[in-house]
Amino acid sequence: MPLQTRIEAAISSAIRGAQTAPAPGRLAAALNYAVTPGGARIRPTILLSVAMACGDRDPLMADRAAAALEIMHCASLVHDDLPAFDDADMRRGKPSVHRAFSEPLAVLTGDSLIVLAFETIARGPGTDPARALELVLTLAKRTGMPLGICAGQGWESESSVDLSAYHLAKTGALFMAATEMGAVAGGQDAEPWAELGARIGEAFQVADDLRDALMDEASLGKPAGQDDLHGRPNAVTQLGVEGATARLRDILAGAIASIPSCPGEAALAQMVRKTADRIIPEAAQHLGHRSSVPGE
Amino acid sequence: MPLQTRIEAAISSAIRGAQTAPAPGRLAAALNYAVTPGGARIRPTILLSVAMACGDRDPLMADRAAAALEIMHCASLVHDDLPAFDDADMRRGKPSVHRAFSEPLAVLTGDSLIVLAFETIARGPGTDPARALELVLTLAKRTGMPLGICAGQGWESESSVDLSAYHLAKTGALFMAATEMGAVAGGQDAEPWAELGARIGEAFQVADDLRDALMDEASLGKPAGQDDLHGRPNAVTQLGVEGATARLRDILAGAIASIPSCPGEAALAQMVRKTADRIIPEAAQHLGHRSSVPGE
Repeated sequence: MPLQTRIEAAISSAIRGAQTAPAPGRLAAALNYAVTPGGARIRPTILLSVAMACGDRDPLMADRAAAALEIMHCASLVHDDLPAFDDADMRRGKPSVHRAFSEPLAVLTGDSLIVLAFETIARGPGTDPARALELVLTLAKRTGMPLGICAGQGWESESSVDLSAYHLAKTGALFMAATEMGAVAGGQDAEPWAELGARIGEAFQVADDLRDALMDEASLGKPAGQDDLHGRPNAVTQLGVEGATARLRDILAGAIASIPSCPGEAALAQMVRKTADRIIPEAAQHLGHRSSVPGE
Repeated sequence: MPLQTRIEAAISSAIRGAQTAPAPGRLAAALNYAVTPGGARIRPTILLSVAMACGDRDPLMADRAAAALEIMHCASLVHDDLPAFDDADMRRGKPSVHRAFSEPLAVLTGDSLIVLAFETIARGPGTDPARALELVLTLAKRTGMPLGICAGQGWESESSVDLSAYHLAKTGALFMAATEMGAVAGGQDAEPWAELGARIGEAFQVADDLRDALMDEASLGKPAGQDDLHGRPNAVTQLGVEGATARLRDILAGAIASIPSCPGEAALAQMVRKTADRIIPEAAQHLGHRSSVPGE
């Protein structure tokens, strides 16, 4: 079964479990609205890829872990969009949850999805309790305080910021959860897989900087460096487009080098390479190869 | 060790775990602010009382479960106080979290506490994974959708309300979690203990109605029945003060009768009786005994 099919089926199954009657209908609808249609489902795809590289010893557990991780990611998007944070009207091409439903329902949707993420790991027949418990712990660590995405968001309320802790928590945490949970679901230790997740997270951050910069160039007149809030260093501001692209390729090479020895090592490296092709903006695809002579 | 000491120590230990450096300081402070000083710690007290009645086979696990339940309760109070819900300025005699810190930090505090509740169950040496996983599932069921406190709050956004589902989720769910999790931590099945929790929750609801009514009488001129929003039936409006007090005593007698057979059955019944003395307002203490002749 293709990964995307496994992921969507696992998410649907988890959401259905939260909607058995009698349930308040609008909140039930909001849960569904918040998780479908999804974005690229990058985190669960990485999780399943790692689980498969480790031997995919317990595919049902891996599917539940993947659904749990994506559900947690969706919860964070719903709360990030709230008026108290980004006050975003749109998300994935449709109105944000608080716009489509209401602010109380958006708070409750996020809360319910956080709970559902843990429930999804713990529920299900044939669960190995020790492995499921480690998945619960790993997801909690990468979501809460002091190392998870809640901490990452929390740093933005500080006057003095520990930048490396901030970046790791804000953009790295759920990618680290992806590789660690994939390893655990696949029957391996989590710890050796943390670096791969951290590097993929870093790569996505540089790719975002590149996309912002290249789109600014295209759409003209948008003030440069506007993402540079909260002291966030921007790879393009620091290194230029070509330098940032080279940096992105370096990070991904490091990611591939960090893959622990496992049965599906080669296929996993291939997946990371494919991810690179997908996240490097088209306008920068020809740039940043170490072997190439700097152009222009 | 007295129950209160066990509970406070377990909560402190859980919160300390979320505050290891480097952590964003204001969010770390807000977590602590939200859980201390506590209220009566009623839910964890019930949980530990049930665990002890069941034999308290794993006291450390019971302590962690008690802390997790109280942390989840505190999370719900922080989010309930938000401007989008009750917009409460004060909680337990001090400014609510969003007033003392900020609205973004209050959202994050609730989110972090929800995560911490599950992490607290899963973390710790000597954990029996199967038992811990069942505690995770039970807490999730009584917190999320469709049966937990999130669902209870969600019913308030519906135009047509399933009243019995609403009450059970809104006021009963965390009391059911208390008895069920106490049983699991004590080495028993959860299911036979659900009724005790539901009845205690119902008793607290009637006691609240009584307190509201008697305080209205004392403070004069406050409109009666103002809690009767969302179609919530009020025991005092329906039965009068004496009738509601009699109903409360009946519910507690039913609660005691529902206690499953266990080593500490008698002590647990005593605990429920003590709870009754504490929650029945003083002005109604002499009322509602089945054997008494109605006064006045």
